[in-house]
This record gives sequence, C-alpha cells and structure tokens, in this order.
Amino acid sequence: MKTFLLTAAALLLSLTVSAQTLTSPDGNLEMVFGLSETGVPHYSLTCKGKSVINESRLGYTFKPAYVFDEGFELIDTEFNESDTVWQPVLGENKDIRDHHKELFVALRQKSTGWLLNLRFRLFDDGLGFRYEFPVQDELRHVIVKEESTEFRLTGDHKAFWLPADFDTNEFPTTTSKLSEVDSLTSEVRKEVLAAHAPAPCLAVQTPLMLKSEDGLYINIHEAALVNYPAMHLALDDRNFVLSALLAPNRNGDKVFFQTGYTSPWRTIVVSDDARDILASNLILNLNEPCKIEDTSWIKPVKYVGVWWEYFVGGGSTWSYTDNQDIIIGQTDYTKLKPHGRHGANTRHVKDYIDFAAEHGFDAVLVEGWNEGWEDNFAYHKEVMYSFTKAYPDFDVEELQRYAASKGVFLIMHHETTSSVAEYERHMHEAFQFMNRYGYPAVKTGYVGRIIPRSEYHDGQWMVNHYNRVARTAADYHIMVNSHEAVRPTGYSRTYPNWIAQESARGTEFESFKGNRPDHCTILPFTRLMGGPMDYTPGIFEGDLSVYGSNKAKLSSTLVKQLALYVTMYSPLQMAADLKENYEKYPDAFQFIKDVACDWDQSWILEAEPGDYITIARKAKGQDEWFAGAITDENARTATLDLSFLPAGKKFTATIYADGKDASWNENPKSYRICTKKVTSKTVLKLPLAPGGGAAVSIK
Amino acid sequence: MKTFLLTAAALLLSLTVSAQTLTSPDGNLEMVFGLSETGVPHYSLTCKGKSVINESRLGYTFKPAYVFDEGFELIDTEFNESDTVWQPVLGENKDIRDHHKELFVALRQKSTGWLLNLRFRLFDDGLGFRYEFPVQDELRHVIVKEESTEFRLTGDHKAFWLPADFDTNEFPTTTSKLSEVDSLTSEVRKEVLAAHAPAPCLAVQTPLMLKSEDGLYINIHEAALVNYPAMHLALDDRNFVLSALLAPNRNGDKVFFQTGYTSPWRTIVVSDDARDILASNLILNLNEPCKIEDTSWIKPVKYVGVWWEYFVGGGSTWSYTDNQDIIIGQTDYTKLKPHGRHGANTRHVKDYIDFAAEHGFDAVLVEGWNEGWEDNFAYHKEVMYSFTKAYPDFDVEELQRYAASKGVFLIMHHETTSSVAEYERHMHEAFQFMNRYGYPAVKTGYVGRIIPRSEYHDGQWMVNHYNRVARTAADYHIMVNSHEAVRPTGYSRTYPNWIAQESARGTEFESFKGNRPDHCTILPFTRLMGGPMDYTPGIFEGDLSVYGSNKAKLSSTLVKQLALYVTMYSPLQMAADLKENYEKYPDAFQFIKDVACDWDQSWILEAEPGDYITIARKAKGQDEWFAGAITDENARTATLDLSFLPAGKKFTATIYADGKDASWNENPKSYRICTKKVTSKTVLKLPLAPGGGAAVSIK
Repeated sequence: MKTFLLTAAALLLSLTVSAQTLTSPDGNLEMVFGLSETGVPHYSLTCKGKSVINESRLGYTFKPAYVFDEGFELIDTEFNESDTVWQPVLGENKDIRDHHKELFVALRQKSTGWLLNLRFRLFDDGLGFRYEFPVQDELRHVIVKEESTEFRLTGDHKAFWLPADFDTNEFPTTTSKLSEVDSLTSEVRKEVLAAHAPAPCLAVQTPLMLKSEDGLYINIHEAALVNYPAMHLALDDRNFVLSALLAPNRNGDKVFFQTGYTSPWRTIVVSDDARDILASNLILNLNEPCKIEDTSWIKPVKYVGVWWEYFVGGGSTWSYTDNQDIIIGQTDYTKLKPHGRHGANTRHVKDYIDFAAEHGFDAVLVEGWNEGWEDNFAYHKEVMYSFTKAYPDFDVEELQRYAASKGVFLIMHHETTSSVAEYERHMHEAFQFMNRYGYPAVKTGYVGRIIPRSEYHDGQWMVNHYNRVARTAADYHIMVNSHEAVRPTGYSRTYPNWIAQESARGTEFESFKGNRPDHCTILPFTRLMGGPMDYTPGIFEGDLSVYGSNKAKLSSTLVKQLALYVTMYSPLQMAADLKENYEKYPDAFQFIKDVACDWDQSWILEAEPGDYITIARKAKGQDEWFAGAITDENARTATLDLSFLPAGKKFTATIYADGKDASWNENPKSYRICTKKVTSKTVLKLPLAPGGGAAVSIK
Repeated sequence: MKTFLLTAAALLLSLTVSAQTLTSPDGNLEMVFGLSETGVPHYSLTCKGKSVINESRLGYTFKPAYVFDEGFELIDTEFNESDTVWQPVLGENKDIRDHHKELFVALRQKSTGWLLNLRFRLFDDGLGFRYEFPVQDELRHVIVKEESTEFRLTGDHKAFWLPADFDTNEFPTTTSKLSEVDSLTSEVRKEVLAAHAPAPCLAVQTPLMLKSEDGLYINIHEAALVNYPAMHLALDDRNFVLSALLAPNRNGDKVFFQTGYTSPWRTIVVSDDARDILASNLILNLNEPCKIEDTSWIKPVKYVGVWWEYFVGGGSTWSYTDNQDIIIGQTDYTKLKPHGRHGANTRHVKDYIDFAAEHGFDAVLVEGWNEGWEDNFAYHKEVMYSFTKAYPDFDVEELQRYAASKGVFLIMHHETTSSVAEYERHMHEAFQFMNRYGYPAVKTGYVGRIIPRSEYHDGQWMVNHYNRVARTAADYHIMVNSHEAVRPTGYSRTYPNWIAQESARGTEFESFKGNRPDHCTILPFTRLMGGPMDYTPGIFEGDLSVYGSNKAKLSSTLVKQLALYVTMYSPLQMAADLKENYEKYPDAFQFIKDVACDWDQSWILEAEPGDYITIARKAKGQDEWFAGAITDENARTATLDLSFLPAGKKFTATIYADGKDASWNENPKSYRICTKKVTSKTVLKLPLAPGGGAAVSIK
C-alpha cells in the first residue's frame, strides 16, 4: 500500500506548475520548491550539481481522513537572507555563524480553504525546512495521522542506522546499504532493552547518516523538537525513499495541535567532505535563541560518581535491602535489614567527594541515594521512588556540608523508571529539595515503558515532558542530564541548562558486551548531531572479570578512552571508572584531569563515519588545546596538523598514545606518554592501535 | 463465549466441598461461603429465607493468562463480630452504628502457591466482601484481566439502571425488567454526552437498584474505591447473572497492583422494605475512618452562584471574548475585545455576594472566572485553562475583600475538561492560590475525554486522581465538590472534605430537557448510595423560554424543588436559580434559607424507588426539623408521621405544598404555604401534585 502510494505520488509530482529556487550563500547548494499540477507541494536539493534529494512530497494527512498534501495553490512567496553570529552558553565554538537564505511559501488548499506555510532555510552545509500553520478560522484543532514529508534519495546509499522504535534509541548502530536494512533489522531488534515499541514498518531512526556512491555525506535529522513527536523514517528500499514516520501514542494518534503552530525543522546536512558534517551548526542555528536570561549558573561539569560500580558485577548496588515489598510513603526503611551492598552510603560517597576534590573534579554523581530501588517494576508500578527521601545510610545534610567544604557538589539522580506522571507530580518538590541541599544538576532517567500508559518515549506527550523538565529546572537554576529521553535536536541552544543527554548506547553497554570498536566513530555523525552526549568515558579497567562474574571487555584501548573526551563533545563529562583504577594509572589520568569541556573553537581534522575521527579544540578562555583521535577496529595513523595554533609561538604537547603492542581486545592498557615542543607548523603523526586512539594536550 | 463460561462455571460450583456460614446480627441474613470440588470460591446470600444471591463465583483472571478463580484450597477461616458507633464529620445522622459479623477466609491456589484472602462482613442490612492479596514472595505485581465476582440473581428483577460506560454516568435512569435492558440499551446510548466509552458487552452501572418479584429490594454497589477501577456489571439476561466488569484503560488493562493490597468492598444492601435501602449505612461502614486529624474547617455549605445563567439561554457565558485562538500563558486577554456577555465579572459577582449575605448563604460559586473558556477543546488540547489567572474583568483581590466584608466566601471552580495530567501539574499552585485568596472550597469538573489518553473516567488511574485531589485538598484545608468524576463509594467518610459530587444527571440536564419527573425518586436509591450529590436544586422559574430560545421546562413543581433539599442528602446545597427568581417568591424561598444541610438524625418515612420518597431530618445541634416528600409524575398523598418529634411538646410546622391545580408540566409554580401547631402525635397528610412535592419546617 505504501509502495503504491509512493509510486502514485511520483507521478503526481512529475508536472510542476510553479517552482521557486533557493541557493545557499556559497552557491554550492540549490533547493527547488514547487507545486505539482495537482497541487502537491514538493522540494528537491542538489549539492555542487549532484542531486541530494530528488523531488519529494511535502504536507500532511489529518485525522479522521483529511488529505492535506495536495490540491494547494501558491498564494505568496518571500525570499530573505540572514547572516548573524551568536554565542552559545556552552559549546564547541565560542561564536557560531548563522548564514542562510530563506524561502517562505504560503499555500492554500483550494477545496478546504485551509492555509499551510512552509519555511526553507538553506545554509552552506545543508537545508532546513518546517511547516507553519497560521491561525485561521476554519482550522483550529488538528490530529495528525501522518506527516507526508519525503526524502527521495538518489540511490542505495551506505547508511549508519538504528531500527525505528518509539521507546528506545539504545540499539547498536548497523552499517549497511539501505537495501540491506530489511534483512538485518530483525536481528538488531533481538537486542534486549528495557522497552521496545518497534515501528510497524521498515523504518530507521534519525539522525540518519548516509554516504552516497558519488561521495556525498548526507545527514537527515530534525531541529527544535517542541510539542511534536520524534520523526523516524519509513524506508522504501526499492526506490530509496525515506518518509516521515512520526512516533504515535498508543492509540495511533501522532500530533495534537492548534493552529498558530510550527513543526520542528526537518534537516539535511550535506557535504562531499565528512568533516563538514561534524562541523555543522545547522541544527543549533535552527533552534530558538536562549530563553534563560541569567545563564551564569550554567557551567561545564567534569564529574566522578558512584555509578560504574553498579555495572561491573562487583556486588555494589542501588538498593538498600533485599525486601522487595516496598510501598513508598508507607515502608519504613529504618526497620528493614540492609543487605550491606548499598553503594550510595555516606562513607563511600565521602570517599568520592575526597577523590573529586583531590583531582579537581567539579562534582560527584550518586545513584541509588533514594528510597524505592528494591521494587522499581516499570509500567506496573506508578509510585516507585521518593524523590525527597534518602535511604537511611545516606545522610543528605552531612553530605551537603562535606561536599561544600571540599568545593565539590553532588549531582542529584532522578530515575523515574518512566513513571512520568508521578515524576511530574513531585518535580517541584524534588527541585526544591535540590535547591535546599545544594544540588545544581540532576541526572534524570527513563528506563522502561511509560506511565501514562498511552505514551511512548518518542511521542509528543513525552517530548513535551522532557522539554518541560528542562524549562522547569531552569526556573530552579538546575542543569539537566537526561538519560533514555528522546534524542536531542539542538534544543539545548534554547535551554542550555539541558546540559547533556544520553539517548544512545553509552558506556554502560560496555558492561553488557554491547559496544563495538567503531561505535564512537559513528556517534558524532548520528546521535551527537542533535547535541552533547553524556557518554561517560574514561574506563581504564576494561576487563570486568576482575570484579567477579562479568566477562565483558571494553571495546576500546585505554588511550582511546582519553581521546573520547575530545571527540565526543559534551560540556558534561564523567570520569566513569572506579577511583581505584585512576589511582593505578595517574599519568594517563592526568589527561582526564586536564581536559576542558567547554571550548573557544573546534577543528574537525579528519573524519570518516565508522572509521576514524580526529578533532582538536581550544579550551574556552585558556591558551590550552586538546586533541583526540580515534579509530575503529583497524589500526591507523592519525595526522594532527597543528596549524590551528597561534603562529610563531612554541608550545608543549603531551602525547598520550597507544602502546606499540596495544589493541582493544588483546592489550588495551598498553600506552605511552611523551611530551614534545610544537608550533603551528607541526604535523603530528599519531599511531592508533586497533580499537585505539590518541590524546594530546598542548599548553 | 461469556455465556458458555458462565454455564461451565455453574456446573463447577454445584459440588461444594467446604462451606462456612455467616449470619447477620439480627439473624435475618445468611451468607454461605464455599469452595467447589474444583476449588472455585463462591458465596450466596439469603434474606429472611429468600434467596438474594444464588451461589456465585469469586476470584480473578490475571494477565497474560493466569486463572485465579479456581484450584484453591482453604487454609484458614476466622469469625469475628464488631459493634461500634462512630460520628461522621457531616452526615444524615450524628451517630452511625457499625454492627457486623465477619468471616475471613484464607485461600491458597494449589498449582501456583499464590495466596488470596476474602473478607465478608454481614450487617443487618446487607453484605460486603472484598479480596485481600497478602504480601507473598511468588506474587508481587499483577495486571488484572477481569474480576470474576458474580451476583447470580434469582429472577428477572425490576431494575433501575444506566448502561455501562467507562466515561460517563450522566445517562437518564431507565426502569425495566433485566430481560428488557438489552432492547432498551441502544436507545439510551443515543444520549448526547461529552464523553462516551460504552462497555463492549451488555452491562449496567452501579449502584444498581433491583426489586424482585418476591418483594426484595436489592442494591449492588461497592465501598471504598481506592486504587482500583469502578465496577460495572455485565449482564447475562437469560440466567440473570451479573458479573464484575471493571473499567479498563484504553489498552484493555484493568488493575495494576502490588501484593499487600485489598480490593474495594462489593456491597449488597437488601431488605423487604425499600426504606431500609435509603437508611443503610453499610457503604459508609465499610470505608476507613476519617484520616484528617483536624476537621474543624469542614462545614456544611449552602450556596448560590454565577452558574445557572449559563444554561438558561439568556446569553451569559463562561468566556470573556469571541476569540478562540487562545494559548494559555501566551495570550494577553487584556488586549482582546470582550464580547460583553461574560458572567463572572466583578460587578455581577458582587451582586451575588450581596444576595448571599442578605439571605444567609455561606458562599457564592463562580464559574468562568479564569482564562481559557473560549477554546476548551477536550482531548485535543492539553493546556486549556489557567488555574491562577482570572479574566481581566474578574478582580480576585477585590472580590476576596468584598466577600470577606460580607461574611461570605467564594467557591473556586476548577474545570479541567479532563486534561488531568495538566491539572495535576498545577494543583498545588492552584490550591495555594485558593489559600491566598480565601477560597475554602473548590468545584472540580471533568467534562470530555481524558488526557492522559490511555484513561477513562472510571479507570484505576482516574480513581487514583480523584482520591489524590481529595487528599491533597485536605492538606490545604479545602473542601472538594467534584463533577463528572467516578460515582462515590463512601470515601467521604475517610476524606470528609470531599463534601459532595455530581456523578449523575443533575439539575443542569433540566436545561437540556433531560430529566423525568421520577428522576429524583430514583437517585437516592442509586447514585446517592455512595455519597452526597451536588444536585443543585431550587429552580423556581422552570420555564426557560422566559430567557430566550431555550424551550426546556422543569420536570418538577416549585415545591418539589424545595423538598429536594431534604430528600437529596448533601452537606453542600445550592440554591441554583437566578437571584431575581428568588426575589419574586420570597415566601417559598424562605424554606431554602431555613433548611439545614447537616443533621443529627434522619427518618426515612416512605419510599418506593421510581415512585415516591418522604424523609424527615433533625438539624444538627438545633431543635429544628425539616421534611420533604416527593412523587413522580403521579399525584399522591404523602403521610408525614411526626412521631420522631420529642413527645409532649408543641411545635410550629410551616408547610409548603403544591397548589391544588399544580402539576410539573402545566402549572409548576402554584403553591400554598401555611403554618400549623404539631406534636409528636401529629400525622400530616400532604397532597403532592403530579411531579410535585411538599416541604415542611418545624420549630
């Protein structure tokens, strides 16, 4: 049926009655908007004369059965150009240029009189467009059945993809031709994850990274996801057509909106140089400016935590007791027998505070501090945790006093286990509790299936929830690091206190044997397109069998773990390993202690998705530079051209390199550290082991 | 399929291996519990030797496919008796006796080892029983597919019923044989109501009032509905078997629970005298005692309001402007042009405050005071109203000052239009706003379909919501009057600040030509079994054509409207008509001004469901008595035996009677008022017109 419709659409589009052309500021990209003879709106995109997106349909279908993607007439067009520079609160670059040309199109559906506007913005590095529904008397409230947006590709591109799922983005990335997605999907779907809501058709998630046979790198995603569900992409793998597949609620409804409304931007970042994809600020540029007036309290955070110990199999755990018959608000934990393996106890947290203070970290994350972990039965149980009551062995007041005395703060943890309506009931008092006890940041979690039971993680209702948490937290001067939320779309420009997200397979999956050596060479091209990731790197002891029965081994050398602090941009960076492991390798640990996580400027020096990435960055407000290079399972020599350094000066580079015999699977902890005098004319050749990396700090 | 199962069950039950008998304190009722040969738990009930409920199945089915209503063995039984007296905060009687015998049964399912307890309480006026799920290692979290509880009736009883619907209880009551329900249901379902979620099978709502051919009055309902969905009753109309049909969520799941849990009580009130049904306190007795420590702030409330004018068709309305493109939080109402018909304006509210003060009312309800009424599009729109921002022409501070100066308070109105998650987000600030501006009571509203979109009005999630509102309001010393909520089950004993509910067809339906003359002779036997109703009587001008185009006429004489203040018990009573109409009939209005709404004692003097009710009550703490008698469309003479008066004293009775020529449809406003000296030996004969009534006050 889908195929039939698409074929029919292709015929409709063939006769275009009116067309408008938009050219990128540098002239390399060209976008054409048109209306077919039957009034179907469509667009196409070329890059240096090569087709990126063939003529593709635009519009909607509404419920119950309103077609809103044909029968339009053009009533107005406007062309504009804008060239501005803005400063993010935290970022990869101090200044971001937003230079684009804009085409605004006003349409009217002849049969209904309903109005639809389209706004296209063409940058040197890609296209963004969105739908705008003006206030109008005859169309006021709408339920969207589907968005008709297509992305008609030119061929069977190589794709870096996750299967579409409305409840999770924690699949491993598969690299394959688009024509192979179908045969590989069922295998990928076997992945055991806490919640699954597979799309009902062949479909993939965004950000979708593509590489065409004629050498174009194409990234499809969205920007400014506000009051709308996440867009997945249905795949017609015979015609290589992607089309919007919005995350529904469980009743099958996709968007509820009221006219006077805009959709998120659909984004296509494109270049013949993979580095331009990583350097792109297109998605940030399409988000609204910062809405927080005073941002002085939003700061980069480097932290350690009582966290990784829960994954390695050494016995430490979130819960306090073995009793699972817990009722929050009724159970008196002081009367229960503790099992003695509770990680978040006052003494242990103090050790981490001491460690953080000694090594210059800003903060300590503590998971498992609050009541409820014994019986957090997702979806079944609505009241699972207290957000204001600590376990008996976690002394909130004493830890606040102690941390403050050491110049360190604690990061709050709010696991909701997706009991979201309940979290919203307690959000204000939870944030007030944080204010009272000096917690300026919270890690939120959304493991499992959602309550309200009509909702999926990626649907409109939950998108509104995540955004509401960020906005509400801003009122309390709280930074948010959300885990298992919908993937980001640059909204951290608007609410920069939403400092990072997980929303992909992070380091925790290393403890489930879940990540491959190429994982972190792909993430910057996919998940990170929308915003920073709390990937939690820094695992030095990659052989988990040292703790007990867990046989997992890290998919990375120790040095690659260092390089990730540069290649995986985030203003929130964890040193995730147990402190004992850092104490064993103080020289390598020095890089983590030194590395910045907020930047004046970044240089993407080498990049190929799935293969390698080399990035250098200048620390914000400091004459210090840091570089990271990583590779997949193949050894490689990274080339670090230091021409970004100020000319005519000498600097000292400290180079952290894989040992000659290093490899991710055989000898991950082999490394060498050396220093070298460098100038802007220096070109460093850095050998990377299989699954390895290199890290460089320059002063 | 259902029929087949029931027939199969009947066979299973025929061989009972163990039986326990419980007798009511007065010996008139007998309940037998047993286990069939295949371990199916069952019960039966007789009244004075007549069967009320034949052997009926007990138990559950769980999801995905666990049968938990057979294969049980008896592991323990306990018999108890209790005889206590308690005092409700507000009520029909100052003292309530709770005298019951109890049978506790502990069962174990042999195949699974899972435990199930049953608790039966037999009173002189009926039976209550509930399921109890003890904490157990092997059963912790459960999704209920269906409760197996049956009520096997002895024949084709006369029933006063509403068709089962998970979203509304605002159907008119139909009186018919059970065998006629099927053929009448589709007609009743045509009723236009704001939300509809019809049960998928032939089924009726509770409280269900039945009358058997052998003269038994049987009422089936439930008590203490907490963390559980409302029970409807599937009807097998060939075998006259009712079986529990729990309100599901939209995914079809019915209850999520964790062991260490009890179901609500299933209640069967029974007598051969209809008056005993109305006099029963069984449902209150099965609820938990009051959980509010200081109840001094919970008071009976007699009020007027800016409300009825919105229904009569005279133009006055909730909204402030004709602009429907409202976005709460963004729209600046001060910049919109008012349409000039907004009821809740300061001047008009002051007029009602003056009227309330002059005539001794406690309070003024004001609907339409807050932003959002122009575009309250249920289900589509989640953010519909502000709960803290008044329209520009409603001066919150000035009205607070003015009302306080007159010794009157304002009743807050929180219409949610069923956007419930949004209401929960703002509930605390809304209650804080009420505290700040001196509002001690709130009328809540749940018109339309629910958001979260997984939920129905009668489901577990919403039941928890209504109860949460009552509990949270108690923390703020706020009384709650909920409209369109699930019907009550006596929980106002536990949270007496939940002072009244609508949850049935109230007076507003008179403006839609929706109530029949017998309506109020049925409601006390159905809706009111669970608790007081904010019926909003007191309409003197029953011909709505006087206001404009509305052709509706009241189904009652003017005097019957007076009688309702006595026959429809509620500690919250409205004088619902426009003040101008009361000013026209000051002598009749005097009864409304005088009548109490909290009582030392009540006497049900005459009663037949669907035909007539005569009740007398003594005002709490006062030597004043009030009586009301009502009839259906047939004229009648009510007999008011005053033997409840203290003997040997003389009192003055003021009698409000229908005029000789009065009738609900021809001459509703004809009335006579006279006074008479009476003693405890007086028996008044009160003529009631068709659709009429009589009201008496005695000092």
